[in-house]
Amino acid sequence: MKQITNLLFEARILKDIVRSGYAFLGTGRETIAEHSFMTAFICFAMAKMEPKVNLEKVLAMAIVHDLAEARTGDLNYVEKKYTRADEKKAISHLIKDVSFGNDIETLIQEFNLGETLEAKLANDADQISFILELKKLKDTGSKGPDKWLPTIIKRLKTDSGKKMAESIMETSWDEWWLNDYSD
Amino acid sequence: MKQITNLLFEARILKDIVRSGYAFLGTGRETIAEHSFMTAFICFAMAKMEPKVNLEKVLAMAIVHDLAEARTGDLNYVEKKYTRADEKKAISHLIKDVSFGNDIETLIQEFNLGETLEAKLANDADQISFILELKKLKDTGSKGPDKWLPTIIKRLKTDSGKKMAESIMETSWDEWWLNDYSD
Amino acid sequence: MKQITNLLFEARILKDIVRSGYAFLGTGRETIAEHSFMTAFICFAMAKMEPKVNLEKVLAMAIVHDLAEARTGDLNYVEKKYTRADEKKAISHLIKDVSFGNDIETLIQEFNLGETLEAKLANDADQISFILELKKLKDTGSKGPDKWLPTIIKRLKTDSGKKMAESIMETSWDEWWLNDYSD
Amino acid sequence: MKQITNLLFEARILKDIVRSGYAFLGTGRETIAEHSFMTAFICFAMAKMEPKVNLEKVLAMAIVHDLAEARTGDLNYVEKKYTRADEKKAISHLIKDVSFGNDIETLIQEFNLGETLEAKLANDADQISFILELKKLKDTGSKGPDKWLPTIIKRLKTDSGKKMAESIMETSWDEWWLNDYSD
Amino acid sequence: MKQITNLLFEARILKDIVRSGYAFLGTGRETIAEHSFMTAFICFAMAKMEPKVNLEKVLAMAIVHDLAEARTGDLNYVEKKYTRADEKKAISHLIKDVSFGNDIETLIQEFNLGETLEAKLANDADQISFILELKKLKDTGSKGPDKWLPTIIKRLKTDSGKKMAESIMETSWDEWWLNDYSD
Amino acid sequence: MKQITNLLFEARILKDIVRSGYAFLGTGRETIAEHSFMTAFICFAMAKMEPKVNLEKVLAMAIVHDLAEARTGDLNYVEKKYTRADEKKAISHLIKDVSFGNDIETLIQEFNLGETLEAKLANDADQISFILELKKLKDTGSKGPDKWLPTIIKRLKTDSGKKMAESIMETSWDEWWLNDYSD
Repeated sequence: MKQITNLLFEARILKDIVRSGYAFLGTGRETIAEHSFMTAFICFAMAKMEPKVNLEKVLAMAIVHDLAEARTGDLNYVEKKYTRADEKKAISHLIKDVSFGNDIETLIQEFNLGETLEAKLANDADQISFILELKKLKDTGSKGPDKWLPTIIKRLKTDSGKKMAESIMETSWDEWWLNDYSD
Repeated sequence: MKQITNLLFEARILKDIVRSGYAFLGTGRETIAEHSFMTAFICFAMAKMEPKVNLEKVLAMAIVHDLAEARTGDLNYVEKKYTRADEKKAISHLIKDVSFGNDIETLIQEFNLGETLEAKLANDADQISFILELKKLKDTGSKGPDKWLPTIIKRLKTDSGKKMAESIMETSWDEWWLNDYSD
Repeated sequence: MKQITNLLFEARILKDIVRSGYAFLGTGRETIAEHSFMTAFICFAMAKMEPKVNLEKVLAMAIVHDLAEARTGDLNYVEKKYTRADEKKAISHLIKDVSFGNDIETLIQEFNLGETLEAKLANDADQISFILELKKLKDTGSKGPDKWLPTIIKRLKTDSGKKMAESIMETSWDEWWLNDYSD
Repeated sequence: MKQITNLLFEARILKDIVRSGYAFLGTGRETIAEHSFMTAFICFAMAKMEPKVNLEKVLAMAIVHDLAEARTGDLNYVEKKYTRADEKKAISHLIKDVSFGNDIETLIQEFNLGETLEAKLANDADQISFILELKKLKDTGSKGPDKWLPTIIKRLKTDSGKKMAESIMETSWDEWWLNDYSD
Repeated sequence: MKQITNLLFEARILKDIVRSGYAFLGTGRETIAEHSFMTAFICFAMAKMEPKVNLEKVLAMAIVHDLAEARTGDLNYVEKKYTRADEKKAISHLIKDVSFGNDIETLIQEFNLGETLEAKLANDADQISFILELKKLKDTGSKGPDKWLPTIIKRLKTDSGKKMAESIMETSWDEWWLNDYSD
Repeated sequence: MKQITNLLFEARILKDIVRSGYAFLGTGRETIAEHSFMTAFICFAMAKMEPKVNLEKVLAMAIVHDLAEARTGDLNYVEKKYTRADEKKAISHLIKDVSFGNDIETLIQEFNLGETLEAKLANDADQISFILELKKLKDTGSKGPDKWLPTIIKRLKTDSGKKMAESIMETSWDEWWLNDYSD
């Protein structure tokens, strides 16, 4: 039980670590926990559109995909050019003596390989989470996102990911409630 | 597609809504997105300890359980005594024209009824997420949590939830990395 | 005395509650206490321009007009469509055993009815407080305000309120000190 | 109208200026606007307990008492030993061409002289606003307030101010809602 | 030793004091400590381009140039028109009984006189630190900086300062890492 | 000139990167720029107590010692166990085409080797900056620092560093201004 309790506190630290990319974007702020929630929710939505997907696997994958960052930190594009995170070592330590540790390790490996349908979807959801944030920042007046959106969109691999990004670009971030507005 | 895009932006707003209970605790801060991530991660861990649990269902449940708060706001203990949220109406509007909308509605209803094993687990995870936060605040010097921890712990329904809480109370929030510390 | 002390601490929590509309605007931040101060100051200024106004009443009204939100929370446009606050119950509880409780209740009722000159003025000041904030956000680069300003301005009821809004729209938020600038 | 609009924007900046004393206390945060609201609310409560008070005057006084800080900045105890604010000049500039400017000037002068009943009350409310904040910080785990509370309490001049402070010291900051708590 | 320890804690408070100009700009945030670091770094770079400069002196000057603000507070353009800081008194108190106190006093005096090459450079670095921040805010979507950049640039005295500002205006704030970008 | 401008913007990003250790301490917040300022100021004070020190070198060293973190990120104790930063590569890129680039490289190498008197002093100042922060957090009510202070103090190498730490532990963080307090 102690090992699992420690694992929960380790996951909890993802609420206190701010994603480092936003400092370089010059606007916005997001914790790893917030990003992981968005990735999981996007996976949920995308999986519903692709009936063959193993929903259990893709959700679990989204929830654990950045878990190692509790130990390695979150590295942005620039930092990755100068810093090498030993994610494997981080995972092996964080799952030590955890009964279901292998499940976590397997999920992250599959995510990183990006070969299965679930991994492709989760990787696209990872990017779409950033695209949603950039679109919101753009819609509310920030100038940085225009520079980045084409680059992030190009990273998408699946057809549904690409269609989703296209739809996001055509949608104002506040349409979901503004469409029904009446004063 | 447009309806799903709007749904993603709606989920995104959970990153911008701060949980209202912390103002009354007098310390700490957490967004609904962060809380939802923690709830999902705790569900993942607890489900692994209870082999009969439908993992897919409990993860999906955790991810969507506070989705309606995008429309109703997050109401703390005091606010709930004076404010009534029509969660059903909120859900019916947010899933309108979403192909997999019924799935979201069903999951939230099951969570709110709290009768199935998955719902009981997810409800306990919802509380354990708060217990973890209170324990961290207590360990780092805040005085409010001592008043609240016994109350929140009493809300737990499952045996594994109760054992988990007991273990959390015996564990310092930084043991997960401090145990291996060497300067 | 105890009841009044509790009432002061209750008013104090308005400093810790962030107005929920700004999350949906996507920019800006304001506590209820800050908003209440601005409403009171605007009332002071507007009352001075309308000699028939009972200044005491309009100031007291502005100061207490959002007091019930300590118990109900602050609900934005979207949240109001799904959540019903029982403001009356909140007020009846917060003034319980307070010797001057009826005065508070009467002021808030008059404000909500919006029929007397003072209530009309205070309601307009409530909106002008938001208009000032939107104008500042617009002047400093945010894109959301342009969408909202016409809607908020339309809510104004009094002639002086409308003239004030017109003047605000023609004035840069930093003119008050920039006009005298010399390096 | 332009002059009054500028005055409103000037008052608005009080939402953006953080009171400098909290940096030296080492904990807490408050804007001048938040402090002014609390001072006004405390004046409202105290005036109700002292029937002879001119409520209109004391409320107006509370609302404008720190207005000059938009131009002079907020100086804490240490800063006041090295920095001299020409409040009179600040006020004379901020009310320039404002039709009701003299009213503001008179109110602030009366507040600063501290001789009338209203001025004494408003000055005590100014301190009680700080006492409430210190008590909340103390109750939630901060160590600085214990050092400061006796000093601030000694500044009080009126009997009702002293009684209020005594009552605050005997009351937990969350009693106002915790007394009715039931899970 | 005690005196020096107190001096270190006094310098430490510069991390907790926010520069007051940004509230009037309506965007951005910077502590005095952050500003002092930037000034020192800019001095380092500019001194390297001007071989005759006494590097030791200009660096020491940059590090201590705003030290008195621990006692006087940081006054922006508007505040300086209404508030007079007795910087000399602040310095004489902060260096009291500090063995190397005269060195600090001499450096600040030289900086304020602005006559030596080192003082001219440090004064320009002080402004360039602000220009860099304004340029970043402009590049990321803020509207205020355009109004201010010409004014701040005009304050520069040295040729290298002027050339540096010109170069800053022609350079996007993220070129330093974006030039090597490849996804 | 372009290369130096880019270098200034690169140093500027140190204002936007929060030191990652505070998330694991559970309290406090500091940017790299703020830390670098404190390190430089402490070096200034310590150098004045050790007459043989080359002041120019130790100040320059303090100012540039964390410059590479603009590219590598700031790694705390845990992160360093799993993530390896190639600081040399980061430096070689950041000084590319900068006329005085070699000076920066040499200073950082000397700091990292920690063999010269200046390097020993700067390394101790680096730790003392953290000790000051921990002491302040401890004095204001945080519980984490007690656990960490002995560990950080043990890292000190010089006699003056050790004496300074001892004096810090015996001094309340607010003595520098509280000693002269009189209401």
